[in-house]
Amino acid sequence: MSWARDFLERYLRIPSVSAQGTGVREAVGLLLETFWELGCEARVIETAGNPVVYAEKKTSGASKTLLVYNHYDVQPPEPFEEWISPPWVPTERGGRLYARGVADNKANLAVRLGALKALGDGLPVNLKFTVEGEEEVGSPSLAGFVEKNRSLLAADACLWETGGKDEQGRPDIICGVKGILHAEAVFRGPARDLHSSVGVAVPSPAWNLAHALAGLRAPDGVVTLPHFYDRARRPDEADLAALRAMPYDEEARKKLYGIEGFVGGLSGEDLKEALVFKPTININGLSGGYQGPGSKTVLPKEVRVKFDVRMVPDQEPAEVEAALRAYLARFGAELVDVHGYPPARTPVDSAVVKAAVDSAREAYGKEPWILPLMPASGPMYVYRALAPCVSFGSGHPGTNIHAPNENVIVADLDPAEAHFGAFLRRLSACL
Amino acid sequence: MSWARDFLERYLRIPSVSAQGTGVREAVGLLLETFWELGCEARVIETAGNPVVYAEKKTSGASKTLLVYNHYDVQPPEPFEEWISPPWVPTERGGRLYARGVADNKANLAVRLGALKALGDGLPVNLKFTVEGEEEVGSPSLAGFVEKNRSLLAADACLWETGGKDEQGRPDIICGVKGILHAEAVFRGPARDLHSSVGVAVPSPAWNLAHALAGLRAPDGVVTLPHFYDRARRPDEADLAALRAMPYDEEARKKLYGIEGFVGGLSGEDLKEALVFKPTININGLSGGYQGPGSKTVLPKEVRVKFDVRMVPDQEPAEVEAALRAYLARFGAELVDVHGYPPARTPVDSAVVKAAVDSAREAYGKEPWILPLMPASGPMYVYRALAPCVSFGSGHPGTNIHAPNENVIVADLDPAEAHFGAFLRRLSACL
Repeated sequence: MSWARDFLERYLRIPSVSAQGTGVREAVGLLLETFWELGCEARVIETAGNPVVYAEKKTSGASKTLLVYNHYDVQPPEPFEEWISPPWVPTERGGRLYARGVADNKANLAVRLGALKALGDGLPVNLKFTVEGEEEVGSPSLAGFVEKNRSLLAADACLWETGGKDEQGRPDIICGVKGILHAEAVFRGPARDLHSSVGVAVPSPAWNLAHALAGLRAPDGVVTLPHFYDRARRPDEADLAALRAMPYDEEARKKLYGIEGFVGGLSGEDLKEALVFKPTININGLSGGYQGPGSKTVLPKEVRVKFDVRMVPDQEPAEVEAALRAYLARFGAELVDVHGYPPARTPVDSAVVKAAVDSAREAYGKEPWILPLMPASGPMYVYRALAPCVSFGSGHPGTNIHAPNENVIVADLDPAEAHFGAFLRRLSACL
Repeated sequence: MSWARDFLERYLRIPSVSAQGTGVREAVGLLLETFWELGCEARVIETAGNPVVYAEKKTSGASKTLLVYNHYDVQPPEPFEEWISPPWVPTERGGRLYARGVADNKANLAVRLGALKALGDGLPVNLKFTVEGEEEVGSPSLAGFVEKNRSLLAADACLWETGGKDEQGRPDIICGVKGILHAEAVFRGPARDLHSSVGVAVPSPAWNLAHALAGLRAPDGVVTLPHFYDRARRPDEADLAALRAMPYDEEARKKLYGIEGFVGGLSGEDLKEALVFKPTININGLSGGYQGPGSKTVLPKEVRVKFDVRMVPDQEPAEVEAALRAYLARFGAELVDVHGYPPARTPVDSAVVKAAVDSAREAYGKEPWILPLMPASGPMYVYRALAPCVSFGSGHPGTNIHAPNENVIVADLDPAEAHFGAFLRRLSACL
């Protein structure tokens, strides 16, 4: 494990935050150097945005090819004051390794490269690695990259970036991701900030924001945007069987999140179905007017809300965007900074999923479980168009991804590395 | 005028922002020095918060006393980037003098002191000046100050801080102010910021905020907090007559504010009645979650809204606060940082109002108009308990108080100074 851990700590010290434009060159440099060290042919492929690092290793006699997806960019680290150790200084504490991006998804690349190092020249399949740099800002250049390099990326299966285990240590095998639409709504009112004494008569963008949001999602969590659910595909029998077998420790999750209960009183199978198969709209941030100490009697000229929409198959980002735009226009709001991608899935009973399940059982000595669709999002759809996709990794339920004190459990790294090695062997047999 | 202008420019350079705790000592020092220069006996009276500057000038043979209220504190200057000239550098441009606090209310004290300078020892009434330092944060110490100094402050009439003119240059005479309640509502959710992919199931404080606000005030501006209007006194016949005579140029105001129309389609007498006699709730600021560049898929653990409630006689701040607290508790929100004061009025047909009207006609050569209750707020209630109150001053419809580029029209300062002198003469005759 020491090779992967050494690489990981170097990788974590790079503040590769795509939303803030930092650390890209350093991350690309480290990856190139490391792939060459591992005997891959590696190069930088430029895109309309941050470059992709591409690396391949061919095996004589192997007829099958696995395409691997990871990203070197991470979420912004703010709020800094809530980190117990600094986000760019990997720190081991209580058996966990803390740093921004360690779970999402630098450790996953590290264990995959660790397995490559361990396998040496005994690879059972050809490998193609792709590490992009814009996942955390919605992967705006990834579709273009795949379009331009379709033959280079040809593969029989894809391994996606992420995965983990539940509270009992059972590894998860992920068959898809929700789609996402990021957007910001800007509510404008008077030409300048006004004294709030006129608020009895002058229209306020802040009240418009409140009414617009309240009409978008009901208190029980049901989205009330017209036609929002029309295209949301219902789970089939295989999906429902996977859902029933899926562990979800409600009490442990409530404790982890620090909440009394779930939205609309969800529990049991309904709660699992919502997490896996229901789309929704989330508010990421609110801003506008006076936010300083004390009070200021101002009627703000502008307020803003950042939000994301989580979509399931067969919802279309363009349709959701158009519906949102039309809805918000009724409140005088403009939709800006819209970007995202559709959901993607591989059937739960496909060969690549079976290889992932069997190799997980072998590596962990525990029965894995299948997640038909991950509640989180990723641009899997562009790889899904190339080959069937599956995903697994070294995470756990308390990784705090996208939040302060992001971490992985150090003892999870070895079995995760073993899982990838075993998967390559199973894959060569079953594809 | 040069004495008042010189004093005003020195006064404006002091960043006396009570909400931010700056410039208090400097403002108090300048005022003490200036009152002594004008032949007053001046001193600092400590309070639970920022001190009050008290100054008096007695006149042999005068049996009547006028108590004058002003405040040396001003609103925070933010957002700095919207000021054309710096907020603490008084700058004349196009016949206007720009600086934070010039209209609210440093110029009004300047012209009153200018009149005092001009009158010399020929004062027709005894004068008691009080200049407090916490008006812009809700005057939390003023009631205690008056309670402890009741005999010192005994007077036959009070002159309040503010006033101005309409688009046609007709001066206004103000007979009261709305009350105000400042508050912040804190909506808390999970123990820490979470990845927004769980938002389909984990309760979000941002959605609670939206639903709470939407249920507080309808899109047409009607406040829907239970029992909110129960105690709001209806205007009497004299009030309605004043309201009919009150000028309000709707088109000019729409242009000034940069709006297409008024809340709920208000216009004509209904619009004037709303501004003068209707209470309301205003949103001053929203904050929470990710507000930086780009996007961040976070479910924030906490969001906040700052707001103010404008009350009319006979609404009680404590009752409104209790109703808000109970209402917000239903959304899991806590009300913090609550402070404010009740409304206050003097009848439109009282002697002190007549003296103000007659002296305005004399000083401006135009017919003044009466505002029974100002849309804005001030702690007049503590002075109203001492004597009848009236208010007038050197403002105009485009002063931008509480907003960037606050200003007064330089040519308004001379007639405002003359008005105060004439008022003192009229007052000695009619009281």
